[in-house]
Amino acid sequence: MNEIRWSKTEKKKAREAFEKAYERECAELARKIRAKAKELSGPDDIWRLHDFLTERRRELDEKYDYRYSVLIFVFARLIKEGWLSFEELDGVGEDKTSKIAALLDFAVETMGESDDKTANGPIY
Amino acid sequence: MNEIRWSKTEKKKAREAFEKAYERECAELARKIRAKAKELSGPDDIWRLHDFLTERRRELDEKYDYRYSVLIFVFARLIKEGWLSFEELDGVGEDKTSKIAALLDFAVETMGESDDKTANGPIY
Repeated sequence: MNEIRWSKTEKKKAREAFEKAYERECAELARKIRAKAKELSGPDDIWRLHDFLTERRRELDEKYDYRYSVLIFVFARLIKEGWLSFEELDGVGEDKTSKIAALLDFAVETMGESDDKTANGPIY
Repeated sequence: MNEIRWSKTEKKKAREAFEKAYERECAELARKIRAKAKELSGPDDIWRLHDFLTERRRELDEKYDYRYSVLIFVFARLIKEGWLSFEELDGVGEDKTSKIAALLDFAVETMGESDDKTANGPIY
């Protein structure tokens, strides 16, 4: 997939979609933090919150990888997890969206609906 | 100070005072976390909260060192920072409290009132 080319306009659209998904996922994370913060009742809860944030930061750092060589995989994952809608990728180029659609079809075929349990986000 | 001896009863009293201070400092930390959680407005705030917790955990791990060889220094610091009152060490033995009092006097003499700015806690 390394031969994919992105025009300047497509890059701009891709960056917008990427940041939209990141902000949504972080907004959901902020909601979870607020809920956990309300329930803090002792030292152990504080360190559990810290462990939770350490783990989420690691996950998000790994997931939100904006290298063009991996971007269609990133977008397919974000759509699958519900952080982005397919329609929000309008403008990134049909060559890219068709590959993303193929990746999503492949995921459905190979993993089935049961894998949707891993999704964290609402569907956009 | 390594020659200090702690009887079983004194150890029990020391452990109670130590845990009281730890719980107070963690309760204050929980208050700060709740306040920061309410103000989260974007990804940067989340990662700043994580950095804050990482730093506080490191500080508390270092500060709350329950080795008997360092415990009177720990107690002097906790009193100086306001997490424990001198009176709450009743029962740990006069030989220990007199050394802690000497450490506190020394701190006041050498650093003066200006160093109280480093205190985080209320005075118990």
